[in-house]
Amino acid sequence: MSNVIIGVDLGGTNVKTAIVSEDRKIIAKESRPTGASDGPGAIMDLMAESVFDLMRVNGLEMSQALAAGFGAPGPMNWQTGIVYSPPNLAGWKNVPLAAEMTKRLGVPCYVDNDANVACYGEYWLGAGQGAESIVVFTLGTGVGGGIVVFGRLLRGIDGTAAELGHITVQRDGRLCGCGARGCLEAYASVTGMTRTATEGWEAAETTLKHLSGGDPEALTGKMIYEAAAAGDQYALHVFHETAVWLGLGAASMVNALNPERIVLCGGMINAGDMLFDTVRETVMANAFEVPAKRCRILPAGLGSDSGVIGCAGCALARYQEEHC
Amino acid sequence: MSNVIIGVDLGGTNVKTAIVSEDRKIIAKESRPTGASDGPGAIMDLMAESVFDLMRVNGLEMSQALAAGFGAPGPMNWQTGIVYSPPNLAGWKNVPLAAEMTKRLGVPCYVDNDANVACYGEYWLGAGQGAESIVVFTLGTGVGGGIVVFGRLLRGIDGTAAELGHITVQRDGRLCGCGARGCLEAYASVTGMTRTATEGWEAAETTLKHLSGGDPEALTGKMIYEAAAAGDQYALHVFHETAVWLGLGAASMVNALNPERIVLCGGMINAGDMLFDTVRETVMANAFEVPAKRCRILPAGLGSDSGVIGCAGCALARYQEEHC
Repeated sequence: MSNVIIGVDLGGTNVKTAIVSEDRKIIAKESRPTGASDGPGAIMDLMAESVFDLMRVNGLEMSQALAAGFGAPGPMNWQTGIVYSPPNLAGWKNVPLAAEMTKRLGVPCYVDNDANVACYGEYWLGAGQGAESIVVFTLGTGVGGGIVVFGRLLRGIDGTAAELGHITVQRDGRLCGCGARGCLEAYASVTGMTRTATEGWEAAETTLKHLSGGDPEALTGKMIYEAAAAGDQYALHVFHETAVWLGLGAASMVNALNPERIVLCGGMINAGDMLFDTVRETVMANAFEVPAKRCRILPAGLGSDSGVIGCAGCALARYQEEHC
Repeated sequence: MSNVIIGVDLGGTNVKTAIVSEDRKIIAKESRPTGASDGPGAIMDLMAESVFDLMRVNGLEMSQALAAGFGAPGPMNWQTGIVYSPPNLAGWKNVPLAAEMTKRLGVPCYVDNDANVACYGEYWLGAGQGAESIVVFTLGTGVGGGIVVFGRLLRGIDGTAAELGHITVQRDGRLCGCGARGCLEAYASVTGMTRTATEGWEAAETTLKHLSGGDPEALTGKMIYEAAAAGDQYALHVFHETAVWLGLGAASMVNALNPERIVLCGGMINAGDMLFDTVRETVMANAFEVPAKRCRILPAGLGSDSGVIGCAGCALARYQEEHC
């Protein structure tokens, strides 16, 4: 039986675990609740248990595992494997995740941030497979990013690269959560989209006010998408605006990096053509012709599993760099 | 005597030639007028003559040359070494520059675009020396760019990467020469700066009107810098605005790539602190703290020789990739 690599994606809600063979076949995966309030020790025990269970159920010995990769929310040091203080994991402060999991699992363990592992997952086994370079945008509460060039994840000198939600698309624009103004995230995240909707809805005829009970805080991205799909002109306009902003960010990356593909991840991609058509048009209108025509703009190929599969992929790449 | 590498930077006005030793010492350089109207054949003969002369004067045999690198204006195909139709070289259309120069010089010849060789020159022997990653902005009539990551020039899948003048900094902003709106180049190039000056000068008290004879077309970047240095408040404001735009572009690259250094090239850097202070402040205010504090923002270390030295550096890197 061939070697396998283990991936574990640690989120605030769920811990996902996957086993991938060295020749890139997804053997098994599972998910269990994180129990975020239990603190780091209990969560690390739970991750180890999940790995042992999944290996056993699939008739695998731990000696067949080359390495295990962990995706965790930042900030962190990917080289030492220390997770500093992720906002959605209470009680985590400077946890030596890689060292602790290496102790528990008995195999080399590596840690990377969650946006980077999602990017690498798409590069390794998803919509970016076979490409020489990809750029990933993860669309959620915020906008995350990942970059693979020369077949390697671009982490940057401090491991903070690919913060693509924080490229400036509008000088003196909207205040962003990061403290700067005019960041892509302030417009193209789900939060940015609901803000676009509620900022303008007073004068608008729209079902969004009814759907959200008139409460700006209660409006969700799904409501906007569904209203748009049902023909609500205002919701359509809001969705289109959001996609134009995202397209401007994508066009900047096309001109800066000339990537072979751009992959979009996150719930917003369920909107399909309504999102992708506008993003593609905006890239064609704003980037140079040769790189714009070249760059395929695609939805995530691994759905919500980009992260956990990427954890295994990153671990394999790092294991091979160290050992080969 | 050790091996040498030849660099030749082909510009619309001058052909610059340099000889660099394999251990990175600049042995000699010279410059002669391109004679751009003479057409490709004569210019290629002139470049060969310049190389032969410079080698002979310095007591070197052509057999000591490992390779020669040529920097030329785009568009081009860096892999085949064909230069398509640079606007400032009349009569050039699909010239197989690498093949023709290999025939003339008898050593392997490589071609890269002029912004990329300038970037690589700074990385190899200039202000980026020893860094793991750098981003270069070349400030002139336009804004060019170059990116080195993982110790390699990032050319992209089609060789069009690092068009950093064409990242969007303002949605629906100024019309740029590329056809898009709100590109960095439309604000942060010398042309963008003179436009900022003349668009607002009607209502302003400024010596710029006198210096340019009131003709917007006659206003130069140098006039703006000199007026600003002499205390003209309006010129100071224009210069500051230009540097803020450049800082926003630099901040986006800091967040996207987390580079160790950013290097600014071109005549505008003679303004010194007036430029660099504002760019640095804008990066600190708009990029994340860790990568912003890390990234040193520096003037070109090779002055106007970044390109010709980089030609030699690129040629050596490509020669080694092919032969080692």
